[in-house]
Amino acid sequence: MTTALNQQALEQLFLNARTVNSWQDKAVTAETLQQLFQLVIQGPTAANSLPARLTFVQSPEAKARLKPLLAPGNVDKTMAAPVTVIVAMDYDFPEHLPRLFPYADARSWFAGNDAAIAESAIRNSSLQGAYVILAARALGLAAGPMSGFNNAGVDAEFFAGTKVKSNFLINLGYPDNTVLPARAPRPDFDEYARVL
Amino acid sequence: MTTALNQQALEQLFLNARTVNSWQDKAVTAETLQQLFQLVIQGPTAANSLPARLTFVQSPEAKARLKPLLAPGNVDKTMAAPVTVIVAMDYDFPEHLPRLFPYADARSWFAGNDAAIAESAIRNSSLQGAYVILAARALGLAAGPMSGFNNAGVDAEFFAGTKVKSNFLINLGYPDNTVLPARAPRPDFDEYARVL
Repeated sequence: MTTALNQQALEQLFLNARTVNSWQDKAVTAETLQQLFQLVIQGPTAANSLPARLTFVQSPEAKARLKPLLAPGNVDKTMAAPVTVIVAMDYDFPEHLPRLFPYADARSWFAGNDAAIAESAIRNSSLQGAYVILAARALGLAAGPMSGFNNAGVDAEFFAGTKVKSNFLINLGYPDNTVLPARAPRPDFDEYARVL
Repeated sequence: MTTALNQQALEQLFLNARTVNSWQDKAVTAETLQQLFQLVIQGPTAANSLPARLTFVQSPEAKARLKPLLAPGNVDKTMAAPVTVIVAMDYDFPEHLPRLFPYADARSWFAGNDAAIAESAIRNSSLQGAYVILAARALGLAAGPMSGFNNAGVDAEFFAGTKVKSNFLINLGYPDNTVLPARAPRPDFDEYARVL
């Protein structure tokens, strides 16, 4: 019988977590990135298609390649973050379905249907990006997701010659809890949800 | 100093969780749906845009409206699930930005740009759908997400006269752990991730 996680865990994952822009001067180790991946990759996607590809931008050299492609308001916090994840999506994901989903001919569902590939890629790689955010929080890291960057530029710089396209970015690190941003307003249940 | 959740929590959220198709005969209460919403709504989205709208399909009458719109392989498990969530996205989300993101004129970023609205809506409502999956697991529920249904039909049946469009569905309930599906294969870190 599975029960709810305790209040402290719910606060760490959701209730007290923030999109963080200020970081402790503490590196994220290769072991932590490996552990993060092993959590994220277990998250569900349609037909286990797992379209996301994760690039952990960590070295000063790699950060320098990313810097000119960021929206101005995202530069300082991203350069300061210990790691920036490029959450990307591989439009070739159907080619992997015979291995990842050996229960049906799922590859045939996408053959010749570029619109279905694009829609499934952004939907499911976004799910996986959310798994990165919550897995990071589960591991005691904080996350700073952003959409403000030059997608085509990132694709040319990091994914040339492939069918991989950038979706969004997530800064990762240990938060400086002395400068947490305020919580933005949230709607009530009855405004954004209903029970039928 | 935030630390990692314990191993049991990581297993409940990611490592041992499954997409569930068989359910205990146990209702999900209104209080649990309220608690789920209060976790999900705290999850981050771009400019706090919160485009997802959640419809909890629970009554036999509402389930009957959904049934003919499901892919054949999704009918039995969905009719058996205590609740099915329609994760939808409101293309009118920019109109709410002055309240939800009172720090900048974010509404103007989307004015007249239908492509930007559509892309942000599917990206961010998918993030929120993933928050539903993981918040459900955090509360001791199991989730069964699916994309196999008639989106246009669901939009006409449940969202007529609005700019709300269905994204994907998630069955929710307490799992029958005696019939958990096998874990599908997963790739290794070096196949789907890299550190630069």
